[in-house]
Amino acid sequence: MKELTTDHISQQFNNELELLRQHFLTMGGVVENQVQDAVQALLDANGSLAEDVKAQDTTVNQLDGLIDEECRRILAKRQPAASDLRMILSISKAVSELERMGDEAKKIANLTLNLINEGESPRGYVEINRIGQMVSRMIHDSLDAYARLDLEAAVKVAKQDRAVDQEYNTAMRSLVTYMMEDPRSISRVINVIWVLRSLERIGDHARHTCQHLIFMIKGIDVRHVNVNELSADMSKK
Amino acid sequence: MKELTTDHISQQFNNELELLRQHFLTMGGVVENQVQDAVQALLDANGSLAEDVKAQDTTVNQLDGLIDEECRRILAKRQPAASDLRMILSISKAVSELERMGDEAKKIANLTLNLINEGESPRGYVEINRIGQMVSRMIHDSLDAYARLDLEAAVKVAKQDRAVDQEYNTAMRSLVTYMMEDPRSISRVINVIWVLRSLERIGDHARHTCQHLIFMIKGIDVRHVNVNELSADMSKK
Repeated sequence: MKELTTDHISQQFNNELELLRQHFLTMGGVVENQVQDAVQALLDANGSLAEDVKAQDTTVNQLDGLIDEECRRILAKRQPAASDLRMILSISKAVSELERMGDEAKKIANLTLNLINEGESPRGYVEINRIGQMVSRMIHDSLDAYARLDLEAAVKVAKQDRAVDQEYNTAMRSLVTYMMEDPRSISRVINVIWVLRSLERIGDHARHTCQHLIFMIKGIDVRHVNVNELSADMSKK
Repeated sequence: MKELTTDHISQQFNNELELLRQHFLTMGGVVENQVQDAVQALLDANGSLAEDVKAQDTTVNQLDGLIDEECRRILAKRQPAASDLRMILSISKAVSELERMGDEAKKIANLTLNLINEGESPRGYVEINRIGQMVSRMIHDSLDAYARLDLEAAVKVAKQDRAVDQEYNTAMRSLVTYMMEDPRSISRVINVIWVLRSLERIGDHARHTCQHLIFMIKGIDVRHVNVNELSADMSKK
């Protein structure tokens, strides 16, 4: 926070911004757990863990509302400019990304509960495990980047998303082949496909979260720049 | 705009807010066309229309950046409070929804081009046609609601999304049955499923767009309220 706040006269304003960032990181931690638990519940066919994931959604939504309200209150009361304004707007947008990640985790939990009710044993989904680990890592790293306001770490997360997309495409191809070879597996495999799709989308949200951070730190809008251009741009800093 | 701006002394500030809203509606119009064209290109196996949809993405991204910058400039320069602050923050978030709708339209266009390259004739997809029309209507109605700052219209769009989700689930069930009966159709049907999933997501974004509008007008956060509660709340206005 140092670089972004040294210009402030008001210590109270500093505290407010710090609190805002803390709340954002708290919410991120909840979502990170939610995603990990959603994957674990599916892999272990653990219904009560899936219910926990769904229950956590209320907390996530409350934090979303709370942080948004904080952003508005600071904007109205402190009328920040320059980097403080960027920080508040970035957090306001990044919070929406976290909230959507939570929604996807909830979807995975609902699928898990359906699978369990239908007597399906959803164990051993190699692809879900691998891609689940990749996106959990992305969330973790993006929160880390926020905690340390670390530009390079943020760019790294944006790059990880490309690997997730590749894994996802490979998994999709092999699942389609699998269904063709064993049509009886179709309805089960379709559920695996939904989970993968949710995980891939969580990866997208993690990338967007980091793009908001990069904007916050550098003041450039990187959302529509691809990863290579991003690295080139980084070297100019 | 009248209700939200009568308190302003500065005519220039009014003009800035009006311009911001105009840009938002312009961007919405581009995205609305993009989604309609993406569906049409798929149904007609029209490659050049699909290329147009992809090309429009640049315009959408530029408008996204432009409107975000306008929001920041107004916040820094005018230091708005109350309803003006809500309006700017709502537009800043709604713009992200529009941009994501454009991303989904681009995905549909890419799928269309793949299908054409593979010599698949993607004609006659009843479900895509129907759900495509439903979500196009949602985008149109949500922009209309923004243009007229119409609270009830916004709530109506939120309700349309529920119908989209139901259609989507029905379509999914029949497609899975279809694949089971004719496993040779799997890879083709999977593409239909991706398109439906993109359309369903566009419906979600349209709903979120309207939720931002409802927040803008009423100052209540409705994102985590369900449709029934929303109607009950409406009656209290």
